[in-house]
Amino acid sequence: MRTEIATLGEFGLINHLTRDMDIQQSSTYKGVGDDAAVLNPTEGMQTLVTTDLLMEGVHFDLTYVPLKHLGYKATMVNLSDIYAMNGYPKQITVSLAISKRFSVEDIDLLYSGIRLACEQHKVDVVGGDTTSSLTGLAISITCIGEAASDQVVYRHGAKATDLLCVSGDLGSAYAGLQLLEREKLVFQGQKGNEDMQPDWAGKEYLLERQLKPQARRDIIDKLREANVKPTSMIDISDGLSSEILHICNESKVGCRLYEDKIPIDYLTAVQAEEFNMNLSTFALNGGEDYELLFTVPLSAHPTIEEMEDVKVIGYITEADLGTFMVTRDGQEFELTSQGWNPLKKESSFEEEKEL
Amino acid sequence: MRTEIATLGEFGLINHLTRDMDIQQSSTYKGVGDDAAVLNPTEGMQTLVTTDLLMEGVHFDLTYVPLKHLGYKATMVNLSDIYAMNGYPKQITVSLAISKRFSVEDIDLLYSGIRLACEQHKVDVVGGDTTSSLTGLAISITCIGEAASDQVVYRHGAKATDLLCVSGDLGSAYAGLQLLEREKLVFQGQKGNEDMQPDWAGKEYLLERQLKPQARRDIIDKLREANVKPTSMIDISDGLSSEILHICNESKVGCRLYEDKIPIDYLTAVQAEEFNMNLSTFALNGGEDYELLFTVPLSAHPTIEEMEDVKVIGYITEADLGTFMVTRDGQEFELTSQGWNPLKKESSFEEEKEL
Repeated sequence: MRTEIATLGEFGLINHLTRDMDIQQSSTYKGVGDDAAVLNPTEGMQTLVTTDLLMEGVHFDLTYVPLKHLGYKATMVNLSDIYAMNGYPKQITVSLAISKRFSVEDIDLLYSGIRLACEQHKVDVVGGDTTSSLTGLAISITCIGEAASDQVVYRHGAKATDLLCVSGDLGSAYAGLQLLEREKLVFQGQKGNEDMQPDWAGKEYLLERQLKPQARRDIIDKLREANVKPTSMIDISDGLSSEILHICNESKVGCRLYEDKIPIDYLTAVQAEEFNMNLSTFALNGGEDYELLFTVPLSAHPTIEEMEDVKVIGYITEADLGTFMVTRDGQEFELTSQGWNPLKKESSFEEEKEL
Repeated sequence: MRTEIATLGEFGLINHLTRDMDIQQSSTYKGVGDDAAVLNPTEGMQTLVTTDLLMEGVHFDLTYVPLKHLGYKATMVNLSDIYAMNGYPKQITVSLAISKRFSVEDIDLLYSGIRLACEQHKVDVVGGDTTSSLTGLAISITCIGEAASDQVVYRHGAKATDLLCVSGDLGSAYAGLQLLEREKLVFQGQKGNEDMQPDWAGKEYLLERQLKPQARRDIIDKLREANVKPTSMIDISDGLSSEILHICNESKVGCRLYEDKIPIDYLTAVQAEEFNMNLSTFALNGGEDYELLFTVPLSAHPTIEEMEDVKVIGYITEADLGTFMVTRDGQEFELTSQGWNPLKKESSFEEEKEL
């Protein structure tokens, strides 16, 4: 079934998409339906605001990204930015520009992913805009969060001797992207044989990391429970190397990152070998892992050591010692920012393949 | 001079665009440069959030909209939404998706318009996203504002006997658009004769209304000073008719709008005649005036009568009396929503011409 969006119109579509969405946050006073949403900030809390604009063909490729996953991921990347400030997301606004080839059913799928991400993180959709696009799909999400002012963690607080820590494993989202890109090429070479399905058996984890990233609320919770406040924090969207450099530049410090400490999943390693690519570059420059990179005082070492799914990967130094990775054989390489740069090339995927 | 955006990259471009932007709001704690902006909400105030996504070819046509004006207008339409809640805008985030044909100098121009609008309204740019686009330009702006909870005005508060009021004059932005569209057609028919300049003499007001709309902070100030709190309010983006229907639907009331009371500038009338179009449809369905439409209790009549640049154009009735316009010759016509609907057609301008 295909319902043309024109049959609903702008307001009809907004009503359709936001119908029976429950308000979950007490700070949401008035959501969709007026010139602006109205929120009640919690007394004594600071407000956090982050926004992302995703363009078809640049940030996502609908030949292999299902619309539900796209909605889910577009939401997650914004929530991740709020967690990276050590805060909690509360509301999002969702703006969509939709070209004629999308039906109401398509946008329902996209929204079902947005809805799922919001439910998991108790976030309310409080507004947005739906409009048309002459070409592809554009998605702009803004997230509003909160944190107590003494809990907000910036990029600029790292100090020499602090430990450099990371959650989860790195490079797997990039390995997943490589898999999807390869299958796309295979598929394109098989015109007339479209029934052939790609064989993902055993590689679901990598695909999931690319298509369904998880914003690490659990890590923020754990740190809070353990009474550890990071001195600096950032989420890994562009690759470990680029994010470490952000923290070091903003904090005016240096670092030593140990290659052999970088957490990498077994499947990612297998995939790197299959692609004949350097495993560390997957983690260093791959991006889209949406894990948290943070620094803690040396005194937190015993606590962090016991924390599930968090690894110490290096330490912070004075600025004049530079920003280096110590390789497995003890050599030092200066870290460079080769993460994804959407403005260097027209297509992100072109760029990402150049690792 | 043309500097390719790739020479700066994403972070370079953001730094370049937001350099030497002063923070004007005490509630802005940390602007651009981390995973999220950090704001200090004023105690006892509610937070207002609104967002817009503008797509090239749908919302704007760069063949006649200068980039500086585009940045200015894209900002103004968001500020206007906050004023329409009877609040004051404080911060915006700006996301841009830029195709290859734009240079750093182009984006500087766009940003100079954003900056000008922000300076005029004491608004801070606290974040955003710059990325690439495979096709045209996309601009997503989110505005954060504040209002005391007992001052917020919704669409749903109008009561029978309330007066229906509007600021400024209506239809002029649409008349300006018609002028620009006509000149574009003339220009396109003149290949090889590109030196010919359109003759706008005496029509600057109409062009300004289309290209450089003003969000009506002054009206919000005046109402406050006069101690008049509207019972409902909305800004006129889609045309008077559509906005009145929003207020009536949300408030569950009816209305009588008097055609002869609708404020229309002399130049708009001249233009309608020149185009052989019905003058009232300019005001009713033209849109983009960004004036404020609001209702006040009947008791505020003397105060509103004396208020400069505000006109009483009708009154609110019980719902069962319907939503009608009383024409100059005393006939009643039911109001219909024929404002701009960006999802009904691919091109807004196609739609707008169908009044």
